[in-house]
Amino acid sequence: MDDTYFMKLAFQEAKKARGSTWTNPLVGALIVKENQILSRGYHHLFGGDHAEVEAFKGLVNPNQAEGATMYVTLEPCSHYGKTPPCALKITKMGIHRVVIGQKDPNPLVCGKGIQILKEAGIQVTVLGVTAKMNEKYNFFYQQKRPFITLKYAMTLDGKINFEHGRRSLVSNHAAYLDSQKLRAAQQAILIGENTLMIDNPHLTIRTQKLAFEPIRILLVKDVDKLDPNLKIFTTNSPIWILSRHVSKRKWLPNILVFTDKNWAVTKILEFLTLHGIQSLLVEGGSHVQAAFVRKQLVDELVVYMAPKLFGGTALPAIRGVESLKVLDMKITKVKQLADNIRIEARRNDFVYRNY
Amino acid sequence: MDDTYFMKLAFQEAKKARGSTWTNPLVGALIVKENQILSRGYHHLFGGDHAEVEAFKGLVNPNQAEGATMYVTLEPCSHYGKTPPCALKITKMGIHRVVIGQKDPNPLVCGKGIQILKEAGIQVTVLGVTAKMNEKYNFFYQQKRPFITLKYAMTLDGKINFEHGRRSLVSNHAAYLDSQKLRAAQQAILIGENTLMIDNPHLTIRTQKLAFEPIRILLVKDVDKLDPNLKIFTTNSPIWILSRHVSKRKWLPNILVFTDKNWAVTKILEFLTLHGIQSLLVEGGSHVQAAFVRKQLVDELVVYMAPKLFGGTALPAIRGVESLKVLDMKITKVKQLADNIRIEARRNDFVYRNY
Repeated sequence: MDDTYFMKLAFQEAKKARGSTWTNPLVGALIVKENQILSRGYHHLFGGDHAEVEAFKGLVNPNQAEGATMYVTLEPCSHYGKTPPCALKITKMGIHRVVIGQKDPNPLVCGKGIQILKEAGIQVTVLGVTAKMNEKYNFFYQQKRPFITLKYAMTLDGKINFEHGRRSLVSNHAAYLDSQKLRAAQQAILIGENTLMIDNPHLTIRTQKLAFEPIRILLVKDVDKLDPNLKIFTTNSPIWILSRHVSKRKWLPNILVFTDKNWAVTKILEFLTLHGIQSLLVEGGSHVQAAFVRKQLVDELVVYMAPKLFGGTALPAIRGVESLKVLDMKITKVKQLADNIRIEARRNDFVYRNY
Repeated sequence: MDDTYFMKLAFQEAKKARGSTWTNPLVGALIVKENQILSRGYHHLFGGDHAEVEAFKGLVNPNQAEGATMYVTLEPCSHYGKTPPCALKITKMGIHRVVIGQKDPNPLVCGKGIQILKEAGIQVTVLGVTAKMNEKYNFFYQQKRPFITLKYAMTLDGKINFEHGRRSLVSNHAAYLDSQKLRAAQQAILIGENTLMIDNPHLTIRTQKLAFEPIRILLVKDVDKLDPNLKIFTTNSPIWILSRHVSKRKWLPNILVFTDKNWAVTKILEFLTLHGIQSLLVEGGSHVQAAFVRKQLVDELVVYMAPKLFGGTALPAIRGVESLKVLDMKITKVKQLADNIRIEARRNDFVYRNY
């Protein structure tokens, strides 16, 4: 039983909160003495106690921590946030050694948690492993923008819609269920005005109850020209409307309107970054998708392919008027979903940096 | 050792001539007496001896056929073609029983071979099995038109070309090799004038030597406006040019020009059927593909998907101006070809009839 072994168990703890930590990372912690696991803990919920604190709470007697090793998947925090800094807490509990999975990319913490521990004379080992956890959290702090996923369903001839201005059901039920899971893993979902009008979607997750629903972002020209009876306005989850014009209407508390004369893609991303949104799912339509492709702002692509040919005048998956650069991707997963195919691709130049 | 067992061996014989029988079916035959295989034969080459004759030739002594059972994968022929009718030959050789894989869908033969055998007092068993062989031969005689395969390479957003009027290499080398195999399995390949001008292809099979190269069909407006220096005209394999205008030029003997005021898709298929072409690969471009989709004339689709996004103004896989009906397909095979994906689909209403 070595560091790798205990760290694996700590990652297993971390995983338990999947879907509940919102913009916080998943973190797990173990307290180990003489190869005996004394306690396990994980960060349960956004705003709740951190994994380290949970692990300390799990000790039969706080004195047990004296001389023990703590395994924690992410560098202990060093700042007063929603809870006091864990690094400080660790130094006070008599922990002898701290083994860390990955350094925290958040500049508020990065290296500072380790520094506090070291200055207190605690032995620190950083393994530099992530167990592929907190990918979008890491990405966000590395790239200073949300991780962007484009998603669409298309036919075998690359069409997303049979006819302009009318909704066509392209993909099957299995693809629908899969896309609900995809949505559930995002902090924000973006659609354009055409998709809003034509599809009239709820944009909610109907297949599971989430602690935090993704924020639904609507990109529109004039917010006050929107039909207030659209289905999306009948739901309680948060909606952010990005409009070119200021609203004079009264909106329900779950709906916020943000105004800018030109909501270009880069502007949208700055806005989301400022609001700490780490992941964005772009659900269309064709012009919105094209705007992201044009700026080479696609980190991941999920395509559901339906066994149909629409041909001719049907709407292509991605379109626009400007000339474009080719965006090179690599296909990372191909899966059959009943009679549909799900293709997952990542940008080819995407280098995932391990902390 | 029963009929099924010996028929399986006969199909194994038939397979040996794959790629050499041109518009003739693959056929294998066995002569069996008291569970002993006395001889095996198959139809080697278009114009050559039929499988039954090959099997007889394989006997140590012709008298051995007396009282034996012949297993033949396809109903013995009844007509004087390039060789005398096999059914007649069988009756003369003293064969006691004939076990047939499938009836011959060719109206010149269908049932008549069996009739000749029965009238001669030979016991006939039709197993109604095809071992998925001669699929396009069967299709041709069932549907009275060639089996049509559409093939294109497209990006993850359904584009076949980055820019109008310029060639883009969409798919990878593995897809190229695969598409060569796909070509080799066809009796004709069709491309339109745009593809001819922009891609300037040889349309030959470079990866293997074939006994019969597919006929390359060029759909053009005015044959005499074609650049005589196009690469395709430097090759020796047959070319049929379908032109709206009569040619005044002199052409090499491998090039034939056919004229019609309107080479509509249905007209092209009638023409090919008349010439006994059982399989057609439509290789593009976008408008030619659309014409076949519009008429719901797609039996099989092979799509190579490349991990790229072209976006915007890039050329879609299939396009046209008329409104279309949806063509329902079913995906029959998905395969990874290095970093590309190969998707094979068939029309959903395609019912394969076993003879």
